[in-house]
Amino acid sequence: MGGPKHEALATFPVVIDVPVAWGEMDAFQHVNNIVYFRYFENARIAYLAELDFLCEMEQSGMGPILAATNCTFKFPLAYPDTVWVGAKVIAIGDDRFTVRHLAVSQRHQRVAAEGEAVIVTFDYCGKRKIAVPTALRQRIEEVERNAGAR
Amino acid sequence: MGGPKHEALATFPVVIDVPVAWGEMDAFQHVNNIVYFRYFENARIAYLAELDFLCEMEQSGMGPILAATNCTFKFPLAYPDTVWVGAKVIAIGDDRFTVRHLAVSQRHQRVAAEGEAVIVTFDYCGKRKIAVPTALRQRIEEVERNAGAR
Amino acid sequence: MGGPKHEALATFPVVIDVPVAWGEMDAFQHVNNIVYFRYFENARIAYLAELDFLCEMEQSGMGPILAATNCTFKFPLAYPDTVWVGAKVIAIGDDRFTVRHLAVSQRHQRVAAEGEAVIVTFDYCGKRKIAVPTALRQRIEEVERNAGAR
Amino acid sequence: MGGPKHEALATFPVVIDVPVAWGEMDAFQHVNNIVYFRYFENARIAYLAELDFLCEMEQSGMGPILAATNCTFKFPLAYPDTVWVGAKVIAIGDDRFTVRHLAVSQRHQRVAAEGEAVIVTFDYCGKRKIAVPTALRQRIEEVERNAGAR
Repeated sequence: MGGPKHEALATFPVVIDVPVAWGEMDAFQHVNNIVYFRYFENARIAYLAELDFLCEMEQSGMGPILAATNCTFKFPLAYPDTVWVGAKVIAIGDDRFTVRHLAVSQRHQRVAAEGEAVIVTFDYCGKRKIAVPTALRQRIEEVERNAGAR
Repeated sequence: MGGPKHEALATFPVVIDVPVAWGEMDAFQHVNNIVYFRYFENARIAYLAELDFLCEMEQSGMGPILAATNCTFKFPLAYPDTVWVGAKVIAIGDDRFTVRHLAVSQRHQRVAAEGEAVIVTFDYCGKRKIAVPTALRQRIEEVERNAGAR
Repeated sequence: MGGPKHEALATFPVVIDVPVAWGEMDAFQHVNNIVYFRYFENARIAYLAELDFLCEMEQSGMGPILAATNCTFKFPLAYPDTVWVGAKVIAIGDDRFTVRHLAVSQRHQRVAAEGEAVIVTFDYCGKRKIAVPTALRQRIEEVERNAGAR
Repeated sequence: MGGPKHEALATFPVVIDVPVAWGEMDAFQHVNNIVYFRYFENARIAYLAELDFLCEMEQSGMGPILAATNCTFKFPLAYPDTVWVGAKVIAIGDDRFTVRHLAVSQRHQRVAAEGEAVIVTFDYCGKRKIAVPTALRQRIEEVERNAGAR
């Protein structure tokens, strides 16, 4: 994770390295579209780990559910390459928050894709949406503040 | 493909059957989010096959590129289930067209997810976007007209 | 699942239909090798469902663990195609049993791949291998006997 | 790739780092079996890159085909972890060579899985097996010799 990253990722609190796998390319010789969502998920999970959200889930039964996601493809990734994938919360609502994702090719030093994911806070025991807990909201704000101050 | 399908798919010219694989579920015991995009792709490819788009591509060097895609998750799929996945062109632009997707659980007779994909017509030899060919546009319109008239 | 199948599958108690997805092809324009193991897994899970093994697992904490698997590739699958995938128990040991798999292309009416999987019966609570329960052994024998008698 | 690795990998000329993705876990909360074959493939492709085999393929039409592969699972991988995955040629035949793979958990410093892959040298234009070219054989022997001498 260390070392200088692409400026487009400057304000992203979480940026992970993902090596492109040869087998992730499809018959068009480019990384298949669904794999970008795996890359985004990887960064999102790393972000949730920063928040201790997944651990807390095991204790409280409260956890994240993905409500929607999207991706805009800028240029096609191919093997060999390594991708920086960023995650950053850009909005917090009553019962959800929005994560912005960026995938940057290290080989080409270019943004390959960008997208968003809407995560709903969910009570897995009660099977219903719940308000974003105050402690979680504060932790997100803290993580984002630290990223902005770097 | 035969037999009655869910009414939400009534106007979709292409609807395929996709069995949910046990291994497509993740640690939350639900089909992982990236798999929905595979389901959508399956239906989109079946639609392109209807258009003879992929065959033509081999001859002309002209082909589809996915520019953007999104998915909204309505309720989580799980194994065992089979999903009807629909594809339907809802807009044709100068150099692109938009496909709408629907994934309907046969077990629950409910829409599990909906989404869209924007496909750009691309000259793979010249490496540039090209206008949607007239013949392709007419073929899409015909396919959609037939679906509406069923 | 109905209808006549390839003779190579005659003695397989479980045979499922798996549509090949376009996106399962890799840059060599053939279905990527890891996907065959997903096909095998699909048939294996269907077999375990026949045994009510997965349901029982939830009650008893006893379940299957995959100890080893292999695949020999006969000829490369490609989209479009549908594959019959068979599962058949060929040996039962003290704490394990061996499943034989076959993947047959419907388009080419040829065996595309064959392989095996060794499943260990495992006590997930106690975290140790356990003897194959007598009831499970009898159920497997019954399933195989019925297949042979068809 | 730098830095000390597990001793089990000492004689492996190619060892790559693969981060485990959360989404690679299945409903049993462990990395799904097919993913191990993706890990193996990643290391195998890196090995072929060392040999300049894939580049040569574009020029000569000669390339690798996977004829068979297997994996024995030692203990289950889970997120978060990073895996060292090794590739090492252990036998060269007339028209094929055998690659041995090892996947070692960095978190647990233990071998998680081991396996093999048999690669046939194939003339993609003539659609037939060909003898392993002398230059390729020498390059493999050189790569393995250098690994042994480290």
